Amino acid sequence: MTAQLIALDWGTSNLRANLLDPYGHSLEQRQSAMGVMKVPNGEFGSVLVELCGDWMQAHRVPLIASGMVGSRQGWKEAPYLSCPATLKQAALHLTEVQFDAPVAGTNCVYIAPGLKCIDEHAQTDVMRGEETQIWGAQLPPSSICVLPGTHSKWIWLDAAGDFQNFKTFMTGEMYSLLTQHSILGRLMDISETGASFKLEVFLRGVSLGVSGHAEVLHTLFAARTTGLMGHLNAIELPDFLSGILIGAEIGSARLHAVKQVHLLGEGSLCERYAQAFQHQGIAFVHVSEQATTKGQWLLARAAGLVKV
Amino acid sequence: MTAQLIALDWGTSNLRANLLDPYGHSLEQRQSAMGVMKVPNGEFGSVLVELCGDWMQAHRVPLIASGMVGSRQGWKEAPYLSCPATLKQAALHLTEVQFDAPVAGTNCVYIAPGLKCIDEHAQTDVMRGEETQIWGAQLPPSSICVLPGTHSKWIWLDAAGDFQNFKTFMTGEMYSLLTQHSILGRLMDISETGASFKLEVFLRGVSLGVSGHAEVLHTLFAARTTGLMGHLNAIELPDFLSGILIGAEIGSARLHAVKQVHLLGEGSLCERYAQAFQHQGIAFVHVSEQATTKGQWLLARAAGLVKV
Repeated sequence: MTAQLIALDWGTSNLRANLLDPYGHSLEQRQSAMGVMKVPNGEFGSVLVELCGDWMQAHRVPLIASGMVGSRQGWKEAPYLSCPATLKQAALHLTEVQFDAPVAGTNCVYIAPGLKCIDEHAQTDVMRGEETQIWGAQLPPSSICVLPGTHSKWIWLDAAGDFQNFKTFMTGEMYSLLTQHSILGRLMDISETGASFKLEVFLRGVSLGVSGHAEVLHTLFAARTTGLMGHLNAIELPDFLSGILIGAEIGSARLHAVKQVHLLGEGSLCERYAQAFQHQGIAFVHVSEQATTKGQWLLARAAGLVKV
Repeated sequence: MTAQLIALDWGTSNLRANLLDPYGHSLEQRQSAMGVMKVPNGEFGSVLVELCGDWMQAHRVPLIASGMVGSRQGWKEAPYLSCPATLKQAALHLTEVQFDAPVAGTNCVYIAPGLKCIDEHAQTDVMRGEETQIWGAQLPPSSICVLPGTHSKWIWLDAAGDFQNFKTFMTGEMYSLLTQHSILGRLMDISETGASFKLEVFLRGVSLGVSGHAEVLHTLFAARTTGLMGHLNAIELPDFLSGILIGAEIGSARLHAVKQVHLLGEGSLCERYAQAFQHQGIAFVHVSEQATTKGQWLLARAAGLVKV
């Protein structure tokens, strides 16, 4: 099978490369720990050639990339595209970056743009990388999509299936901050987190977070007083806090008419969101496939980089 | 003038001692950096004697204390009194702790109880130290009182002037966490904070925080995107974030029918709250006097420790 495209998922911590066939399926996959933050002296080209220079030589196919590689701290800034945004528009706004390739014809990487939108408070929100994942997931029109993470994203697609707007919630980062650096963490033992997930305690947190989402700076304090009063112990408190935060996120997002959502992602964090949705009576479809590569393929096709 | 009482404001970072006359006025004041967290091996008695053992010998008067000295990490736990709570009840629930005093008759300190209440989400809230300050401020019945701080407190007094309930907001701690440890801090320069307060930027944050208080985990992200978009610079961003947080606190507290508030405290943080209240059309009275000593005097009098 002839290779058609090298697709790069280049994030903060990792670089994943896929060699794709004419149907966008993976022929071979490679991974490197050289995430954007670890590339020395801006030598992105060298890192790339080291990981898949042999692919370039053997197949002479175009390269497409998405993720933090297109940020200001990355290889080259790929400007944010404004919502409402379509896959076709994104494909027309790929940012070219040249590098020293081992053979002619493959010395250019096309970086996908991030997206930006303006919320109802006139504030800008941004994403970079997730948009490609969602395009790859090929969700139905008018879908609402949730991507849990350090900064979890809620995305509202319009009737045509394009990006209408989205919202970032700092839920995951807040959990890390509060368990590691705040007074809430002092009563907690986070060494067991994950190993001994307390569903009932987590859901108690979810209920509280949902009902107290309009006063989060106060609601969070319950993760201290519940410990002070001896109602939860040091191992239970992290799951309670996690529930409060995820519940607050859901309570806030619900303001924007949430009925059914598509949950994108894998692992224990996604499982927590699934439990919280179920508990709150929010119908959801769990889309666990890795959609980023598919999104990159669709972008490359729409940009005319691959002929099919 | 004969001394009547030694009043100790013993918090996490400092110990302040006041020798009081029969009217509750200060005859002499002393301060030590031996806050609760710095007292070695639980030697609270020794620390106390070192600071004002000569007062004990000279006057043989009772001692009263309030603040974190009554916490589990303090000298002896003074259990929380449930709201609604009166000064008289607090005076009936002082916790005695004995120590080796230089003379007989002064070998006991009476520690004021903290307060607890249950919020509308069935969660416990607590305070320790602020209650004494508020009693000392002798506010009118049905007052609403705000004490800015690491954990700022909003207190609702009832028609008799007693504690009805209160709410803690983790606003100050959140500001520290986010500027020092989060992704928001990466775009900020906090070295100038305070020296160059940007009122207009702060108030822009307040507006956003108030209108976005129901989705704080999202609203806070504006302190990153505003920097990313180049709308605010590294020196302005901390004041913008401070505004968002204080605005969110006000937006949340406002849910509980806030018309006029009493603002207790001093310094630049209190000044920020004053600016925010003014901007939001919330009438306030700034009560800047140090009320803690007065509160301790009133407690001691209600407990019969001093005869007047």
